[in-house]
Amino acid sequence: MATRPFIQAASAVHPVSEAVAAEARLRSDRLTKPPGSLGALEDLGARLAAISGTCPPPVPEPAAVAVFAGDHGVVAQGVTPWPQEVTAQMVANFCAGGAAISVLARRSGARLVVVDVGVATPLPPGLPADVFSAARVRAGTRDLSEGPALTPAEVDQALDVGAEVAARLVGEGAGCLITGDMGIGNTTASAAVIGAVCGRPAGDVTGRGTGIDDATWRRKAAIVAAALSRLGAAPAPREVLVQVGGLEIAALAGFVVGGAAAGVPVILDGVISLAGALAAAALVPAAAGYLVAGHRSAEPGATVALEHLGLRPLLDLDMRLGEGTGAMLAHPLAAAAARLLGEMATFDQGGVTDKRG
Amino acid sequence: MATRPFIQAASAVHPVSEAVAAEARLRSDRLTKPPGSLGALEDLGARLAAISGTCPPPVPEPAAVAVFAGDHGVVAQGVTPWPQEVTAQMVANFCAGGAAISVLARRSGARLVVVDVGVATPLPPGLPADVFSAARVRAGTRDLSEGPALTPAEVDQALDVGAEVAARLVGEGAGCLITGDMGIGNTTASAAVIGAVCGRPAGDVTGRGTGIDDATWRRKAAIVAAALSRLGAAPAPREVLVQVGGLEIAALAGFVVGGAAAGVPVILDGVISLAGALAAAALVPAAAGYLVAGHRSAEPGATVALEHLGLRPLLDLDMRLGEGTGAMLAHPLAAAAARLLGEMATFDQGGVTDKRG
Repeated sequence: MATRPFIQAASAVHPVSEAVAAEARLRSDRLTKPPGSLGALEDLGARLAAISGTCPPPVPEPAAVAVFAGDHGVVAQGVTPWPQEVTAQMVANFCAGGAAISVLARRSGARLVVVDVGVATPLPPGLPADVFSAARVRAGTRDLSEGPALTPAEVDQALDVGAEVAARLVGEGAGCLITGDMGIGNTTASAAVIGAVCGRPAGDVTGRGTGIDDATWRRKAAIVAAALSRLGAAPAPREVLVQVGGLEIAALAGFVVGGAAAGVPVILDGVISLAGALAAAALVPAAAGYLVAGHRSAEPGATVALEHLGLRPLLDLDMRLGEGTGAMLAHPLAAAAARLLGEMATFDQGGVTDKRG
Repeated sequence: MATRPFIQAASAVHPVSEAVAAEARLRSDRLTKPPGSLGALEDLGARLAAISGTCPPPVPEPAAVAVFAGDHGVVAQGVTPWPQEVTAQMVANFCAGGAAISVLARRSGARLVVVDVGVATPLPPGLPADVFSAARVRAGTRDLSEGPALTPAEVDQALDVGAEVAARLVGEGAGCLITGDMGIGNTTASAAVIGAVCGRPAGDVTGRGTGIDDATWRRKAAIVAAALSRLGAAPAPREVLVQVGGLEIAALAGFVVGGAAAGVPVILDGVISLAGALAAAALVPAAAGYLVAGHRSAEPGATVALEHLGLRPLLDLDMRLGEGTGAMLAHPLAAAAARLLGEMATFDQGGVTDKRG
């Protein structure tokens, strides 16, 4: 029997090289600028060096963004004003080039793939094969407020989808992976995943999603609280995905592990991607070293997850769209950090007096 | 007698269009995303529309970054450990392509020009004419701790240099201007300019510059405090530049006004650029509408200046290098904001159900 793609990826992840990160920091201090004056970009350069195992690191280009789309049974509880068919409509919009992530990926020369891992409603025929992948595990999750959202086998299948997409994109030339998501209702599932993995109460992780009123927020937070209490303290990560996960969240976890296995940086988008990354890091701890936080989403769960992962986001623009938009916008910063390490002159090369010399 | 370039530019600046900004906000709410979910990028899109007077606004490309270089007599007081000749050496490094801004501009396809408006020491011969402009008003300022740093005529000449460079770059095709600076000692002059224009004490605006120890910081803050007390309350902006300005700071003020006169966005870098922008906005209030804050520098004066100008920085990465690096890194965000407004599908076009519909 062939090894499952996720298991194969998980066993291929090796820890990033702290020795090469230290080498990058030394190099950074010899470049023609005051030490430390590039701030967080110097940390990012060191991280990219640690990931690639080389200093200077390769420029993480071209980027490829994968938008995993899935629906959520919990929408039956009225946690969002958007109808479920919007997930399918947005998949078509991604493919047609009209969505925000379509515009941003096009502008950056990044490849965009859209993966149906769990859309509930029919998709229009004729979606372009170079963008769209059909990998539907199931037509949306079950309602997490009534019981497990997924079976263990469904979680595994979604993890496999994500790991396979990552391997394929890197195999076809991507030097950097970007996480994206689409799914009406998925901030509810993400809040539950983040609360469960980080051990935080519903009130700390439940946000306004696409913009909901106070009454809807209270209903949503109560659903998250009940789900967390069902899971109990310190649940196993796979059990978290079974009880409260989403198919796109599990696929994102697989995608993160697949990217780490392939040795490329994975730039995380907002709260859905962070839920997937938390699950990935819980399942395969060494994968955490490959993560770059693209931005701080306006969702409170994003900040909780970033702290848990020890990541400093590159952007903080009050965005809360998902699709990979915040991560895609951060990609030029990662490319810049690598280029600065690789292309700047040292004090010797530049003929500049080093005050410490 | 020909009108001076700065005066000509100042009289050509017209207020940005709040009506077009409002139109951009309405358009943004019809695009296939939850209203407001692009956060600060929606504000930026509206600002770009207001600047251009059209909705959607043109993509602010290509960018051109001007690095104005000048020296500071106040280095005689030991406010920095770096020797003055580093200013000239860095000018050569910019031209040779080895500095951080060289790498970033090259990567972005942005044009880089380096303007000697007041370097104190000799420059090497043979600097490339397509990058380097010789416009030295004087070989560095006088020591601002002993009296006026500049004469009114020198300030005017530097304002003219900046306005001329802006007009030339836009005339040659730039759709966006980016401010840059180089000058050993220039965080001292900038702190004094910011303190004077914003009415804040030396302790609030004096920073560590390239990285100085406590004793040097105290000396620097005492110099800034003495300069502020010499200027008194609410000094005229031109008098601020005369007493405590730098040639590159005055040139940056002229550059901002020149960019506003040409109707393009001007992305501001860190504390030196902000000092120039404060002077520009004090001299020509309507120019403030054309400003985009690229980043929040680690220098405390930067935050004071941003608040005074009412600007939210796009990046906050603890950078403190200058050269235009923080602004250059922010440029892709401005281009993205314009493209999102121009290229995203509306709910109708995208066939997506608008929950408000």
